[in-house]
Amino acid sequence: MTHTPEHETTTPTPAEEALANATNDASLARSLARSEEIRADLDVNPGRYRMLTGVRPTGNMHLGHYFGTMHSWRRIQDLGVDTWILVADYQVITDRDGVGPIRERVLSLVADTLAVGVDPERSTVFAHSAVPAANQLMLPFLSLVTESELHRNPTVKAELEATDGRAMSGLMLTYPVHQAADILFCQANLVPVGKDQLPHLEQARLIAQRFDKRYGRADKHRPVFRRPEALLSEAPLLLGLDGEKMSKSRHNTIELRMSADETAKALKKAKTDSDRVITYDPADRPEVSNLLMLASLCGAGTPEDIAARISDGGAGALKKLTTEAVNEFFAPIRARRAELAANEDYLREVLHGGNARACEVAEATLEDVRAAMHMNY
Amino acid sequence: MTHTPEHETTTPTPAEEALANATNDASLARSLARSEEIRADLDVNPGRYRMLTGVRPTGNMHLGHYFGTMHSWRRIQDLGVDTWILVADYQVITDRDGVGPIRERVLSLVADTLAVGVDPERSTVFAHSAVPAANQLMLPFLSLVTESELHRNPTVKAELEATDGRAMSGLMLTYPVHQAADILFCQANLVPVGKDQLPHLEQARLIAQRFDKRYGRADKHRPVFRRPEALLSEAPLLLGLDGEKMSKSRHNTIELRMSADETAKALKKAKTDSDRVITYDPADRPEVSNLLMLASLCGAGTPEDIAARISDGGAGALKKLTTEAVNEFFAPIRARRAELAANEDYLREVLHGGNARACEVAEATLEDVRAAMHMNY
Repeated sequence: MTHTPEHETTTPTPAEEALANATNDASLARSLARSEEIRADLDVNPGRYRMLTGVRPTGNMHLGHYFGTMHSWRRIQDLGVDTWILVADYQVITDRDGVGPIRERVLSLVADTLAVGVDPERSTVFAHSAVPAANQLMLPFLSLVTESELHRNPTVKAELEATDGRAMSGLMLTYPVHQAADILFCQANLVPVGKDQLPHLEQARLIAQRFDKRYGRADKHRPVFRRPEALLSEAPLLLGLDGEKMSKSRHNTIELRMSADETAKALKKAKTDSDRVITYDPADRPEVSNLLMLASLCGAGTPEDIAARISDGGAGALKKLTTEAVNEFFAPIRARRAELAANEDYLREVLHGGNARACEVAEATLEDVRAAMHMNY
Repeated sequence: MTHTPEHETTTPTPAEEALANATNDASLARSLARSEEIRADLDVNPGRYRMLTGVRPTGNMHLGHYFGTMHSWRRIQDLGVDTWILVADYQVITDRDGVGPIRERVLSLVADTLAVGVDPERSTVFAHSAVPAANQLMLPFLSLVTESELHRNPTVKAELEATDGRAMSGLMLTYPVHQAADILFCQANLVPVGKDQLPHLEQARLIAQRFDKRYGRADKHRPVFRRPEALLSEAPLLLGLDGEKMSKSRHNTIELRMSADETAKALKKAKTDSDRVITYDPADRPEVSNLLMLASLCGAGTPEDIAARISDGGAGALKKLTTEAVNEFFAPIRARRAELAANEDYLREVLHGGNARACEVAEATLEDVRAAMHMNY
């Protein structure tokens, strides 16, 4: 077990063990194998799944987001999976004191989402703050977790360590519980995650299981909440243009909404190395290899092929090729995005439609929660 | 200061100091003086106030509840104060693992409330679990409190000590925050409390103030949340029939819904002492004095007068007189209660009306919260 509870008073259930083990190697291997099975089943039985993914509107979406998760939204939707995109606006205040230009960022995120191919006729794009019946689940769910469990959550733990003993906000401490409410309210059974987010998903599964055990059911043949499964990302990790972790706050990203010229400018400043012969060698030449990978993801061939084509053309040729690949690949997405961004009324209409759909589903779930808890008067 | 924060990083604001000092003597004296001022103003300006009071539906209401708080609901309502009675059903799961016969208890509480004179045409009787827009306030409010503040709350502290290091539920830990949401959502500015609840009210006032400072306003001329004031109870403390603290779980109470015969039976078993001469002496003869106080509250005269009338009649005469006084006083309330309890449809109708009114007000408040936070898309 990676996280040993200090005051264990009862034998852990299998779900509790799964949570404790969520990040160890054997568990990760199982999660990967299960993700492969699901990926195969998606092609055959897309109607069995509802996929939920959440995005924090903390800035403009960039190519790391695109190749990390966004590119799969359209694919999954087009398979026929019921696709839900949560704009996690309340998460913006879990680790900062203000909301920033939240309204602009939310609408920008909706534009990005539609630009990459999410179709509001088939998929549901909605805002966390717009679904009171989902947020109410916080109360019964908080009764199902202990304070020490909250502290063991890796995100909460990291935050606690980072603040060096200073008090943490109640919203950060209860973060795994809102995330469970976000996932469970809509009966999503599939959540694309990176491996660092597996413990969150295990916490949500555990809450679903405990709710069933403690409060029972509205319909005796099925639990109130479906237990969501992880779809582990296969995406290669893109670095920022400075060779560090890609991050909005480091200004080392290429944003979806950038123009071709801005993209060229950003790539011109990208860090490389002094060896004129371009080779794909992620371990020893991370910056050069990262540009090769980016060009590859944009359809320029395998990283090795691209490197061979450039040969001793040097960093200049690599940047030129990468810029062209990125600009060509994103041209249609960017054109569509510019059109969408100019039509705020339409973006709001999409969000309102998604919010209404999310509220309808949340209210139905909350009715079941009330029935299970005998709080339907 | 009664509660010194361990990791104080900034100078406390006046509201933070008020919270830390909520239970010290000087602060209590100020709260009492302010309650007196408000009590006087209620006669003159009842329209200035919205009163909220919450009750946990954990069992049947008894005479301790009646003389502690319920008797004042009708009086305050009849003065013309907008009166809100919260049936705090989610609070039932803060410190226990099941909901118990919650549906019966909630409807029983509604019957009690109406029986003591709360008029659903003028007052709002509603259930915590029925107002999602109020419960959503948990999220922004949790961002405004720190974990260490939650731990300093006396109720949470007591719970933590009582559990002897075992993990506490997330719902108990965040208890001061739901209570703040309950109070603030409906813009109540008056909350009847006992002195042990003053810290909760201070926490709610602090959250209102911090929301204003951090997230701003929907209307620049007024904060989103009114800051509630305490109306400190003047009620004398009634003991249970065994001379211990009156409590549903000790079975030492007389319930509102008991018949005259059941009341006589319960009082017959009341603990007294062996001195046949009845005197009012709360310090040395708590059980006898408690019965005198109960008879007095039920209109039999001052405790001293009743004692003089009984003189050397002994405990039997005291119990007889008390039984008659209680039964006479509660006869009309009990008759009305029996009528109400037989009409579940009507009780549900009252609750539905109250829930609808509470939802309307909660949604208006949530709209202002969204506008202040720029989360209105």
